[in-house]
Amino acid sequence: MPRYAYLGPAGTFTEMALRQWSQTAAEEPAMVPLATVDAALAAVRAGDADGAMVPIENSVEGGVTATLDALSGGDPLVVVAEVLVPITFVLAVRAGTRREDLVAIGTHSHAWAQVRHWMEQHLPNAAYLPTMSTAEAARELAHSGGGAPFQGAVCAPAAADQHGLTVLERGVADNPNAVTRFALVARPGRIPARTGRDKTTVVLFQRDDHPGGLMAMLEQFATRGVNLTRLESRPTGEAMGQYCFSIDFEGHVDDDRVAETLMGLHRVCAGVRFLGSYPRADGVEASVAPGTTDADFVAARGWLAGIRGF
Amino acid sequence: MPRYAYLGPAGTFTEMALRQWSQTAAEEPAMVPLATVDAALAAVRAGDADGAMVPIENSVEGGVTATLDALSGGDPLVVVAEVLVPITFVLAVRAGTRREDLVAIGTHSHAWAQVRHWMEQHLPNAAYLPTMSTAEAARELAHSGGGAPFQGAVCAPAAADQHGLTVLERGVADNPNAVTRFALVARPGRIPARTGRDKTTVVLFQRDDHPGGLMAMLEQFATRGVNLTRLESRPTGEAMGQYCFSIDFEGHVDDDRVAETLMGLHRVCAGVRFLGSYPRADGVEASVAPGTTDADFVAARGWLAGIRGF
Amino acid sequence: MPRYAYLGPAGTFTEMALRQWSQTAAEEPAMVPLATVDAALAAVRAGDADGAMVPIENSVEGGVTATLDALSGGDPLVVVAEVLVPITFVLAVRAGTRREDLVAIGTHSHAWAQVRHWMEQHLPNAAYLPTMSTAEAARELAHSGGGAPFQGAVCAPAAADQHGLTVLERGVADNPNAVTRFALVARPGRIPARTGRDKTTVVLFQRDDHPGGLMAMLEQFATRGVNLTRLESRPTGEAMGQYCFSIDFEGHVDDDRVAETLMGLHRVCAGVRFLGSYPRADGVEASVAPGTTDADFVAARGWLAGIRGF
Amino acid sequence: MPRYAYLGPAGTFTEMALRQWSQTAAEEPAMVPLATVDAALAAVRAGDADGAMVPIENSVEGGVTATLDALSGGDPLVVVAEVLVPITFVLAVRAGTRREDLVAIGTHSHAWAQVRHWMEQHLPNAAYLPTMSTAEAARELAHSGGGAPFQGAVCAPAAADQHGLTVLERGVADNPNAVTRFALVARPGRIPARTGRDKTTVVLFQRDDHPGGLMAMLEQFATRGVNLTRLESRPTGEAMGQYCFSIDFEGHVDDDRVAETLMGLHRVCAGVRFLGSYPRADGVEASVAPGTTDADFVAARGWLAGIRGF
Repeated sequence: MPRYAYLGPAGTFTEMALRQWSQTAAEEPAMVPLATVDAALAAVRAGDADGAMVPIENSVEGGVTATLDALSGGDPLVVVAEVLVPITFVLAVRAGTRREDLVAIGTHSHAWAQVRHWMEQHLPNAAYLPTMSTAEAARELAHSGGGAPFQGAVCAPAAADQHGLTVLERGVADNPNAVTRFALVARPGRIPARTGRDKTTVVLFQRDDHPGGLMAMLEQFATRGVNLTRLESRPTGEAMGQYCFSIDFEGHVDDDRVAETLMGLHRVCAGVRFLGSYPRADGVEASVAPGTTDADFVAARGWLAGIRGF
Repeated sequence: MPRYAYLGPAGTFTEMALRQWSQTAAEEPAMVPLATVDAALAAVRAGDADGAMVPIENSVEGGVTATLDALSGGDPLVVVAEVLVPITFVLAVRAGTRREDLVAIGTHSHAWAQVRHWMEQHLPNAAYLPTMSTAEAARELAHSGGGAPFQGAVCAPAAADQHGLTVLERGVADNPNAVTRFALVARPGRIPARTGRDKTTVVLFQRDDHPGGLMAMLEQFATRGVNLTRLESRPTGEAMGQYCFSIDFEGHVDDDRVAETLMGLHRVCAGVRFLGSYPRADGVEASVAPGTTDADFVAARGWLAGIRGF
Repeated sequence: MPRYAYLGPAGTFTEMALRQWSQTAAEEPAMVPLATVDAALAAVRAGDADGAMVPIENSVEGGVTATLDALSGGDPLVVVAEVLVPITFVLAVRAGTRREDLVAIGTHSHAWAQVRHWMEQHLPNAAYLPTMSTAEAARELAHSGGGAPFQGAVCAPAAADQHGLTVLERGVADNPNAVTRFALVARPGRIPARTGRDKTTVVLFQRDDHPGGLMAMLEQFATRGVNLTRLESRPTGEAMGQYCFSIDFEGHVDDDRVAETLMGLHRVCAGVRFLGSYPRADGVEASVAPGTTDADFVAARGWLAGIRGF
Repeated sequence: MPRYAYLGPAGTFTEMALRQWSQTAAEEPAMVPLATVDAALAAVRAGDADGAMVPIENSVEGGVTATLDALSGGDPLVVVAEVLVPITFVLAVRAGTRREDLVAIGTHSHAWAQVRHWMEQHLPNAAYLPTMSTAEAARELAHSGGGAPFQGAVCAPAAADQHGLTVLERGVADNPNAVTRFALVARPGRIPARTGRDKTTVVLFQRDDHPGGLMAMLEQFATRGVNLTRLESRPTGEAMGQYCFSIDFEGHVDDDRVAETLMGLHRVCAGVRFLGSYPRADGVEASVAPGTTDADFVAARGWLAGIRGF
């Protein structure tokens, strides 16, 4: 039975993402919650897990920096699948707690960032207390015998259920359409087959920090008609203003236009880290500009061979 | 006496940034700690404070998303100064606590992100407990009479002093060169005078979400020889994959090349939010490409007037 | 009565172009044939003529280099109108000459270039003899009493009529759709009013001869959404491989996008020679990309004034 | 013995170019003068000649359109060598003719274009009479027993010698540094070996006539760091404003950066005609941008193979 780690504890949206993905998997996996993204990826790198489900991008908060940074360094890992999960929080309390009893609310800081305007409006006097995860807020509230420093927890519906809490409010959200994208990460070894509806993820390191560098990188995509779907700059941590770029783009490493783009990036960047090609969760077909189909590349190679043989 | 808000409480690096800036100010300001970036900016917008010092970028963690997002919306505010502060944490404890007594460490999640590798190496068994700020960790540890759920706090040296804690370790850092950039934000009204060593900050909203849009924006800079110093993509929050771009670039709105670039961006973007021109904290002179000095622009205008008068 | 010079003699397509244009002129001009483009332009520069009609581009042969080069140097002149004339040659002979009598054919070298495939097919044994103009071939054939070294002339129908020659073949042409574009050139002074269906002509000199220079020039157009309609490289004559570029583009110097493009070119080029804005002969409306209308420029200037006044 | 055709007659600069090239050839060729560039190329295409020397570019007049157009269509031919010849005309007369006897001057129209300012200054009253070539002017003057319609010929020194004319003036030139570039053209079959100091010539046909097309083509070069050395637009002859582009660039089809550029052009153009890779006459080494050496391409391919094998 395959083992998959995830950013735990149980009851988080990450667990939901892993469950959602498992329904399409060949074999039901064992699911192992771990405390941090780093720990989940370390388990994969060490061979203790066959893969790890981690959050990678939130439609409200942007890229999940802990994940982006953990994938940018260390032993190579690749994304082999992505899962989209709509994010809908509940406000959970111990049985008997009323709205007017709520002096403080516990939740994870990322969750708080997504509900704080709702809170200002509905519970303007409640203080925020950070917890290690949304599920941890629920657990602490449920199991500390009333000793928790907060009276309400903002968490996933599953966590409220799991810990026997009462749901006081559903749909707690500043933006009701919030979605989080999760990535299933594995050791390199087998790239998912090309489907025509794929994405590829890379991290690009600039050769020097001069600003035209980003244009030179983007030209490598533009010249081969490859569309970006996400661009995040991340500091390399070496000095203020030195960035690497975490990029998703349409297409699969087995597409000729993607292969040539990757080689072009390899030539102009100080470094390129390939983080996998995988089917898109939203199933959108890649747009392919005129002159950039595999057939066009094959024809161009044939033509070149012909003139070289002149 | 002017009043300046800052992301408090007292004892944070943000307070250090405001003190550092005050030494160059005409008049010693009153300094008002507020609990969140939103609260500090709200005080400025409401006229309760003349300005607010907030963190905007960290050399390790990247852009401070709460600040970037708070400046991107709401009533207009502009950056009028920037301050660079080296970030060096201490591990502070109550008198008598020894290293082997440390079961849990309290600090802010951003601080934890900058010391977690140090912790894995030096205190691998200590758990992390999130607090509202690094100074809050120190305060809670010092003043809860031993009732805090953690025995050590990662905080600024000032916070340890202020709360009478003992410093067990100095220079707690994964990256000893970490620097945070703080911005002094004010209501629009008076742009700091041009110095030749200036930066300008904007937020750009794409007209549509097609990927070539970023190239079209960057061309507006490139055509006028304007260099970027920071580029962050931020989700607009409306749908997965819809971004705005938070950008710093060299030069001042009173430079002709910057003025024309801004107008070009205004024409090609769905929206441009001007967030100020201000002297660079590092004093680096702007690089000006041939053909992009003010004299070149003046000459071009004179030439155009001549041919129109033909 | 205004005086207009043209590349003569009478009976050339240039005369036809001037007659065609005159039908729309306020006042019937006097028409003065001169032997060379240089002579026609010199007459305008000297004030002996109010304008000169000269060929500027042929759909088969490309730019008329004598005209392009003459406009690139010397005292400034500007194009104030353009005329398109379909080019249809006749094969003219003295009365009684039969096809089998044709041993040699006289015409101008540019005309020969447009009919030589027709000649290879229909008169494969006839030699080509160059003359100063197509009309001169007709004149020499008609008036030398049989002493001309050729028995047939390739010329405009008007020239055959004028000199009393017999037309043996009509529609002598390798490409039956050949068109020549003529320019009415005048001293600078009054630019024709903007019509929304205008073109502008410039000559651009590169700052240095590095090859990226052309890209930098073209970017000035692309950034403002200005479309090129003709691009000719011309050697500057100083050294092999040093070029200037003769360019026509859509729009009028009074369009804001054109004005900013021209100023941008002035900044990045070693030199820009403005050769006029004038209504297009084909009446095609300029395509204006989103964000590049005058209204967009006005809005951008207003916005900039607002933020500068902050 | 190999047979080489050239644009004759004997005594032209083209013959000089072929003689100059022959000194480096393995075997002394037979040299066959033909009347036109078309005839010389036809002889090669038909197998009647092993190659043809034709003028391709003049530092004063620009591209030789007859040659460029003849190479753009018809059966494929390739340039296998280039030769640079300084152009210095003489003014030749029959023995006894004095300067004041000169009423008319015969020469080829291209030669006249290069000397007309000299003529205006030194012989302002002499008329110009076009001839089929500069050598033909010398021949006609020498051998028509005084019956030529001109008294002086502008031609190469060799032609004056050959026909026993007297040289009245040497160094007749508007630009004393004029150089013409000649190309030795052959049937496809064997591309000259790569030397590191090579050029490649192509003709590019745009997919449609929209103006951004040229930018898209130039980007294919820029993305691979390939430098252009000549760019000529030529009308396709189909309609006003439809162009193809005749381009020389640094590098050899066996260079990886050139190969990928050619394949990229093949994908984005309606057509690409390869006209050969050959050593540069001026021996200038190709500039190779960082990331575009063959070693960089080999490394990129190896890296791609590695990640595909994941």
